[in-house]
Amino acid sequence: MVDLFGRDLITTQDWTVDELEEAIRVAERYRQIGRAGREFPEVLKNKNFFMVFFAPSTRTRGAFEAGATLLGGHAVYVDVSTTRIRAGEAVKDVAAMYDIYAHGIGVRLLDKAIDYKKGEGNAVIREFARVCRKPVINMADDMFHPTQAIGDIITVRRHLRKLQGKKFAIMWAYSSRLRGPCSIHADLLIATRFGMDVVVAHPPGFDLDDQVLEWARQNARDSGGSFEVVHDFREALRDAHVVFPRSWATKELQEVGASKFGVEREIEIHNRYRDWMLTQELVDDLMAPGAIVTHVLPVFRGEEATDEVMDGPNSVIYEQAEDNLYAKMAVMALTMNGDPGV
Amino acid sequence: MVDLFGRDLITTQDWTVDELEEAIRVAERYRQIGRAGREFPEVLKNKNFFMVFFAPSTRTRGAFEAGATLLGGHAVYVDVSTTRIRAGEAVKDVAAMYDIYAHGIGVRLLDKAIDYKKGEGNAVIREFARVCRKPVINMADDMFHPTQAIGDIITVRRHLRKLQGKKFAIMWAYSSRLRGPCSIHADLLIATRFGMDVVVAHPPGFDLDDQVLEWARQNARDSGGSFEVVHDFREALRDAHVVFPRSWATKELQEVGASKFGVEREIEIHNRYRDWMLTQELVDDLMAPGAIVTHVLPVFRGEEATDEVMDGPNSVIYEQAEDNLYAKMAVMALTMNGDPGV
Amino acid sequence: MVDLFGRDLITTQDWTVDELEEAIRVAERYRQIGRAGREFPEVLKNKNFFMVFFAPSTRTRGAFEAGATLLGGHAVYVDVSTTRIRAGEAVKDVAAMYDIYAHGIGVRLLDKAIDYKKGEGNAVIREFARVCRKPVINMADDMFHPTQAIGDIITVRRHLRKLQGKKFAIMWAYSSRLRGPCSIHADLLIATRFGMDVVVAHPPGFDLDDQVLEWARQNARDSGGSFEVVHDFREALRDAHVVFPRSWATKELQEVGASKFGVEREIEIHNRYRDWMLTQELVDDLMAPGAIVTHVLPVFRGEEATDEVMDGPNSVIYEQAEDNLYAKMAVMALTMNGDPGV
Repeated sequence: MVDLFGRDLITTQDWTVDELEEAIRVAERYRQIGRAGREFPEVLKNKNFFMVFFAPSTRTRGAFEAGATLLGGHAVYVDVSTTRIRAGEAVKDVAAMYDIYAHGIGVRLLDKAIDYKKGEGNAVIREFARVCRKPVINMADDMFHPTQAIGDIITVRRHLRKLQGKKFAIMWAYSSRLRGPCSIHADLLIATRFGMDVVVAHPPGFDLDDQVLEWARQNARDSGGSFEVVHDFREALRDAHVVFPRSWATKELQEVGASKFGVEREIEIHNRYRDWMLTQELVDDLMAPGAIVTHVLPVFRGEEATDEVMDGPNSVIYEQAEDNLYAKMAVMALTMNGDPGV
Repeated sequence: MVDLFGRDLITTQDWTVDELEEAIRVAERYRQIGRAGREFPEVLKNKNFFMVFFAPSTRTRGAFEAGATLLGGHAVYVDVSTTRIRAGEAVKDVAAMYDIYAHGIGVRLLDKAIDYKKGEGNAVIREFARVCRKPVINMADDMFHPTQAIGDIITVRRHLRKLQGKKFAIMWAYSSRLRGPCSIHADLLIATRFGMDVVVAHPPGFDLDDQVLEWARQNARDSGGSFEVVHDFREALRDAHVVFPRSWATKELQEVGASKFGVEREIEIHNRYRDWMLTQELVDDLMAPGAIVTHVLPVFRGEEATDEVMDGPNSVIYEQAEDNLYAKMAVMALTMNGDPGV
Repeated sequence: MVDLFGRDLITTQDWTVDELEEAIRVAERYRQIGRAGREFPEVLKNKNFFMVFFAPSTRTRGAFEAGATLLGGHAVYVDVSTTRIRAGEAVKDVAAMYDIYAHGIGVRLLDKAIDYKKGEGNAVIREFARVCRKPVINMADDMFHPTQAIGDIITVRRHLRKLQGKKFAIMWAYSSRLRGPCSIHADLLIATRFGMDVVVAHPPGFDLDDQVLEWARQNARDSGGSFEVVHDFREALRDAHVVFPRSWATKELQEVGASKFGVEREIEIHNRYRDWMLTQELVDDLMAPGAIVTHVLPVFRGEEATDEVMDGPNSVIYEQAEDNLYAKMAVMALTMNGDPGV
């Protein structure tokens, strides 16, 4: 019997496959209720989910806030600039406060907020988790984005039916702007848990985090899937059933920070790989029949991928966004109330 | 039978007089409930209204957020600077997201946010409406402010009883600051729908939008009212039953944008018309007995109008604000739930 | 029979001891419900509490917003920078609006927002109270912080059981940053109402407000307590049962404003008193056995007090934060609904 009441969710690696399956089950039930226009169980009735945002957000904030309301609760939007956190107050004191007021706490801390330095946001979130007895949910940091991962695997499984033996291409894609790797880590970590054959393609210099790569390999061994890194995106796309085209910063930039590394220098490196853009032609020519194109959004249209492919017949990006709403609702219900009511 | 479920409200021109009358009826019923301190029907129970603000707001945000709560729902306040909208994300992707999370979507986009350029905010709101299946409500743009219009006509009709044959003076008024024309357009478009004799007075150079003027004339023909533009505010005030004194920017500034036109140059033009200020004396000397003074607020006291007239016996400005709350509640209930519960 | 429906709370001096006792009683009942995980009475069901923030906040905002949700209502977070208040709109017009939308209105206006000038924030809050028929709750200004005071006295009384004859040391403490005196005033005003022997210790130049000192003396006379100001913190700590170590600005700075006085000049004065820091040794050596260390937070660790004492066995800072949640809920319930449901 799976019981997730009071549990943190920092990365999907923290949860067993059974626990992830329970979140998926609940999310699918919520989706049925939502699509049928029926009333959701009020499992968060008059409960507060505090969302602490160190970085901007459209989807994650919107999905958590809407989802809390749908379940009868309230998500409190806290922009960190309206608090004393950046005026000398200790993180542990702030965390202790929210632990008193809230039934669950979400934290988002990535990208500019930490100068794109790998691990810094995650360390703050782990400090929240250390202090708080209430569940702490990672709403995206410089390393992980677990509720995104759960939503994404739901969409992918709905389309592929069976995940075992299916190929998931995670493709570095060109952009003229900076991006952290959390969504990439999120999807490769969860896809390897569920037995998929995951192939990451990126140009030299864009290597992913060592710990994440090690986990991915271990996950694949445990699940009967496979994990591989290549430097040719065509190779990754060949016969793939899923693709996720997205930019991320070089490993060196993530290690020293964007200010020290230099944004212009980084973009110059990106500019060498302008052809790393997903097009409908690539999908049609290389991928398996009925393959799906995913993206966690926002997508940089005309850089990471063309409008044609994002709005085309293989794209499932808006379905993914919908599944993300229900995944977040499931995580809140399971960790903040235990009983999800479905 | 009027059914407004799922309908957008970009301008009152989109709705028939019967549909507007239904919104008015519901707003009046909500006012009775509110004034009696009774409980409102929970027609928005656990429903989300997403409010996307590209521009600041006191009243509109406050009224929508309070109104959503009163009906059992939740209005999500989204300051656009906390999203990725201004960091390269396509409007259509953001709109598609909110369409998934929300039961209704409000957008406000005016003034500084678009450099006071006429039509630019409205175009973005129409893009939201194009993408979203859920109702999209204009919370004020550079052209329209339909929920304001509905609230205003309620206050006016309560005081004048019959609107047919009553004179509504819309008076350009001095201010040392910039303002867009949306509230002006709002009131003249709705007043001409309801058979009033609308007279707009403004100095040369402050001509209103051609399309709006054409609609106003057509409305007046259809409703048995009249519509006229003059350049002498005394002429507009003479025997008028209602006045709305408010500043707006010159037509040329609205066409090229404030930065290109020059704010100082604009203010110099305004400064020629410092005498265009509504005073209690003007009301007493020129207007019909029992005439009412309206303003959508904020009013620039000592510029657009004196404190004396704004706080005086003819002023209905706070009653207007109250009617605006109920008008917004009516629009949300009708478009997001269909059945307003009254 | 105490009836607080519709009452403002600008300072605890506005309420009788019986009224304060009723707020304390309700807060304690709410605490029992909260700790037992039972459901709170929905006494704020679908009611709106508008919180207008001219200054940042972690705790006060979080506690009011969480508390409103727990009682079935909604707290609307209004950052004043998203309104027209600073773009020329009269405070009385804004107050009149919120009075229409809300069932209660909170205002926070202190520190940087008024250049640390004593009395300026309070004057704005009193203007809100003058205009609004709905209850206006002071969420901290440059003078008072009444809901904090109520929460603090609850924690203190729980630990000391009887307050009469117990010594409360309010100790100016070093910090390299500026702070207003509202929490200091809050605690000394309420402690003197409840018969405590209050001793304030501060270096020369840091004298407190004359009106507050006079009230404190009068309170002590009425309650059978005592009130004294000394310039030696050891003297204040000796045999004290409670201590609150916190920095505040010099009287002269508060009178002329931080910009005119000079922040660097102020900090230089502070720097003369770096030894005014609460340590565990001071607590152990000087205070009464079982004495408690309080702080309203945020505390500047390593300046006002050491980590050791803040996280040590005498510290009750997180219990205080919890009591503050319930005190705020009690104040909202009593003023906005009359019947607190317990």
